[in-house]
Amino acid sequence: MDNFSYCSPTRYVFGRGVEKETGRLTAAMGCGKVLMVSGGGSARRSGLLSRVEDSLREAGVEWVELTGIRPNPTDDRVREGIGLCRRERVEGILAVGGGSVIDTAKAIAGGVPYEGDFWDFWAGKAVMETALPVGVVLTIPAAGSEGSGNSVITKLDGMHKISLRTDMALRPRFAIMNPEVTFTLPPYQTASGIADMMAHIMERYFTTTEEVETTDRIAEGVLKAIIAEAPRVMAEPTNYDARANIMWAGTLAHNGICGCGRREDWSSHGLEHELSAVYGVTHGAGLAVVFPAWMTFMAEKKPAKIAQFGRRVFGVEESDNHSAALEAVDRLKVFFKSISLPLTLNELGIENADIELLVQKFHEDKGLPFGPYHPLYPEDTSAIYKLME
Amino acid sequence: MDNFSYCSPTRYVFGRGVEKETGRLTAAMGCGKVLMVSGGGSARRSGLLSRVEDSLREAGVEWVELTGIRPNPTDDRVREGIGLCRRERVEGILAVGGGSVIDTAKAIAGGVPYEGDFWDFWAGKAVMETALPVGVVLTIPAAGSEGSGNSVITKLDGMHKISLRTDMALRPRFAIMNPEVTFTLPPYQTASGIADMMAHIMERYFTTTEEVETTDRIAEGVLKAIIAEAPRVMAEPTNYDARANIMWAGTLAHNGICGCGRREDWSSHGLEHELSAVYGVTHGAGLAVVFPAWMTFMAEKKPAKIAQFGRRVFGVEESDNHSAALEAVDRLKVFFKSISLPLTLNELGIENADIELLVQKFHEDKGLPFGPYHPLYPEDTSAIYKLME
Repeated sequence: MDNFSYCSPTRYVFGRGVEKETGRLTAAMGCGKVLMVSGGGSARRSGLLSRVEDSLREAGVEWVELTGIRPNPTDDRVREGIGLCRRERVEGILAVGGGSVIDTAKAIAGGVPYEGDFWDFWAGKAVMETALPVGVVLTIPAAGSEGSGNSVITKLDGMHKISLRTDMALRPRFAIMNPEVTFTLPPYQTASGIADMMAHIMERYFTTTEEVETTDRIAEGVLKAIIAEAPRVMAEPTNYDARANIMWAGTLAHNGICGCGRREDWSSHGLEHELSAVYGVTHGAGLAVVFPAWMTFMAEKKPAKIAQFGRRVFGVEESDNHSAALEAVDRLKVFFKSISLPLTLNELGIENADIELLVQKFHEDKGLPFGPYHPLYPEDTSAIYKLME
Repeated sequence: MDNFSYCSPTRYVFGRGVEKETGRLTAAMGCGKVLMVSGGGSARRSGLLSRVEDSLREAGVEWVELTGIRPNPTDDRVREGIGLCRRERVEGILAVGGGSVIDTAKAIAGGVPYEGDFWDFWAGKAVMETALPVGVVLTIPAAGSEGSGNSVITKLDGMHKISLRTDMALRPRFAIMNPEVTFTLPPYQTASGIADMMAHIMERYFTTTEEVETTDRIAEGVLKAIIAEAPRVMAEPTNYDARANIMWAGTLAHNGICGCGRREDWSSHGLEHELSAVYGVTHGAGLAVVFPAWMTFMAEKKPAKIAQFGRRVFGVEESDNHSAALEAVDRLKVFFKSISLPLTLNELGIENADIELLVQKFHEDKGLPFGPYHPLYPEDTSAIYKLME
């Protein structure tokens, strides 16, 4: 096991009707006025946003709005939000939405107190030390941003999709999580969210660090819970308990508890970020295509941990590691297919992918080589993209 | 799944040599002078305490000492510590030790800013809102107090051993966890710690709340990790990775992550606390006797969850819940025996236990009936104690 330092200070307020706590929690983080960031309008249509506003009003918290944040959120909206916060002198940010909304809210929170351009942090030119406090009302269990210190933003100039990881600065103060608000998520979005949270665990699980049994068992446990609950939420979108278990799993997948004591990989996320940036695909669906390809490639290079995943998560019985790893990939594909996720670039809607461009952008954004599990050079990266065809 | 509100703000600094961070972290919690609480002298003899003192000195933190805290810590030492803190005007508490030391440190931390008698909180006469900040250097993985908001203190007058649970006030700000300092723990203490951490998970796991798959899988995962690593630490006390996995499991067992979304039980702890209070037994060893008895009793009343535990944690194959539950108890006993833990009151060193007294004190301290899983009345409590004979 590796040394680690871990702190997850977010208060999770979870269950039916918990959005009525938003005002109290926002005031408790010291904010009399916030920027409320939201997405395409579903939170308004569902009535969630008015319940949140009622709660803010009752607690005496004022707000200004930034709406219409789209998937794969971009730097232009972050700059718009930073300007708005400065003009309106807000004291914190409230994100009402899923990962894109939360990541935008976080980027704004980090940008407001910084004198330079906020992208400096994403470009690795500055280290974020402070940020406005962020609270979250979660509507889509997928990205896990409600419990993480990370934010993924795409820079329109060059379409670079970059993830910033902070230890503490961008961890939300609270996350309001009512599984009922996820009842109306369309099946494709539900399934993509499931692939995303599984990928968050697997990026941590596939490690070269030996002897991390406790963290391994937690990771396997959350994966098993997701795999058990996924068919239920797909079949019964208004099953509260299935939605609740998936929602909570999505947070645990990414708040760091599944990564304690080991090097993490994140190659698959990197490979997917290029697909999202270039072709605008849904991140989770992209991961359902990328991860099995990456695992297939790694089954040839370093099969042991993939075999363990297969045995412990899917009950694979092959004793030989290479066969067990390949069987694990098959089981994962069968699972993804069972919830109607794509398995190839074609099924993802990408025809004749420009693999050369993807490889080039991947190493441009991630470095050369990249990937602690097994360092990827352009020929490896290219081989993995080809396995998605 | 039940609604829940969960926050675990403790920073865990884990690994080889991390005690050198003590000074920096103590200063960062705003303390220029602390009370350093420790136990019987092993931390001094091992050199840990001098390394901690060096680190405090380097960070410019002063300290006064309260030493010699014994297992099953008592209210007299807490009062002594509160007096010392007030006279010396300390700003926080640093616990260097295991559960008894940490629980004493917490009780002092809560008592200092309170005008009445600190026991008011344990007696349920007052609610703790604030406390001095507490930092921990952990030496014994068992009680999980380094990550919990709880503190168990025994009142000498009447020998009442009571657990106070706070949501936030008593959560340590940081926990320094170096598995190397546990290399020298005697086998009995190592094994007792293992029973204690397993019990912390099982008190949460055996619930009447339905549909908590995600939390169940985490609990089962941590239990499986403990069961896998336990024989290794017993056979090779200086195996770093085995010690590390056990140490981290002990924290996760009790920081609340295994209880999210459900009612917890805590009957077995209550039953054991009376054994500790009356007969002075080691808490974890007591739990190795109590838990199988409680489970045997419950196998007749409510076998389903105990059967699930057996199937998922020990691979029990019986399809009938009652048989599977009884088989689960057997497997647990075999496991406890394999690490030389006692299974009966006799093996625990208690001859002719005064069951009537134990039953009376249990309901006096816990109420009547007690136990959410299956409410215990005196005849039930008595039956469970008799199963330990």
